[in-house]
Amino acid sequence: MKTPSTLEQLIQALRVLPGVGPKSAQRMAYHLLQHEQAGAARLARALADALQKLHHCARCNTFTEQEVCELCNDPYRDDSQLCVVEMPADLLRMEQTLVFKGRYFVLMGRLSPLDGIGPRDIHFDRLLARASDGKVREVILSTNFTVEGEATAHYLAESLRARGLQVSRIARGLPVGGELEHIDSGTLAQALIERRAL
Amino acid sequence: MKTPSTLEQLIQALRVLPGVGPKSAQRMAYHLLQHEQAGAARLARALADALQKLHHCARCNTFTEQEVCELCNDPYRDDSQLCVVEMPADLLRMEQTLVFKGRYFVLMGRLSPLDGIGPRDIHFDRLLARASDGKVREVILSTNFTVEGEATAHYLAESLRARGLQVSRIARGLPVGGELEHIDSGTLAQALIERRAL
Repeated sequence: MKTPSTLEQLIQALRVLPGVGPKSAQRMAYHLLQHEQAGAARLARALADALQKLHHCARCNTFTEQEVCELCNDPYRDDSQLCVVEMPADLLRMEQTLVFKGRYFVLMGRLSPLDGIGPRDIHFDRLLARASDGKVREVILSTNFTVEGEATAHYLAESLRARGLQVSRIARGLPVGGELEHIDSGTLAQALIERRAL
Repeated sequence: MKTPSTLEQLIQALRVLPGVGPKSAQRMAYHLLQHEQAGAARLARALADALQKLHHCARCNTFTEQEVCELCNDPYRDDSQLCVVEMPADLLRMEQTLVFKGRYFVLMGRLSPLDGIGPRDIHFDRLLARASDGKVREVILSTNFTVEGEATAHYLAESLRARGLQVSRIARGLPVGGELEHIDSGTLAQALIERRAL
């Protein structure tokens, strides 16, 4: 008694998803076949569609269906500021603040030498070319405040400054509504060290 | 700035997978597009293939590509014993023991009134018809020892016994190699209550 080969292939194929091991791939396959045939068909189509239509924006590197994305094409954005984020999701979060009116560059990752992710994987050359277009005055590094995000920001800052660009980093500190009593001491220490003059 | 619609559709479509919320669907979509284009194409094909080719075995209800599965077609299996399991994965585990030589019936679930899963959803009528084929002498209930699995076994036992069939339940107790010191007391209590005469 073997698992039918189409079922086995589906279970194997599901393991391509991040964080999905053999057990959950099996559970997912049974769930789809048993309770979500329509959803599974939709997923198959969505995957094929996305693979066919989506690619990287020629300017900011985010995912788009056009050659250059909507935001890069928007004539009303400020060409002098370039905000560097790790992922498209970070770009969207940034846009939700309604505060930033400049342009973006999406690294599609972060430096992580232990995982073999070097400057080439975060499209470092394209970022340098993009930032050197003659219009960009300031590069705002908005990578995460994780170890990898910080290392990435540090690396990019050095290289961009060496090319005469003004470089900044989004602020670190207490969240809005944050109370000292409930904040971790690492954040509180940084908030103290990076205090602003009033 | 909006997410491209094909990307949005892929993220929505991924949420059909069990245990995948909006955040992990987004992470999965980016991962597939960024690092696993070939894997995503394979997944799209595997889904379409599985939906087209797999259906339930007419006899035991497991997934198969034929009308009746390999195991149900095997002339060397014992027709007098019918082992009832919740899922195809349980059937495979059972086969790996190499101890059982009878036939199977796969419920494709378990009774769970709180989730609205009743006798119809576990194909109760088909099980009754299968067990009443005149050849089956003993039905071995091998649902899990969870609350739902136990309730399912209890329900099935009553109905099957009422039709004059001999019904049994797989044993509960310490695992092979299990040490009393490390076993939970519920299992130990049951192992004591259900002790065998030697």
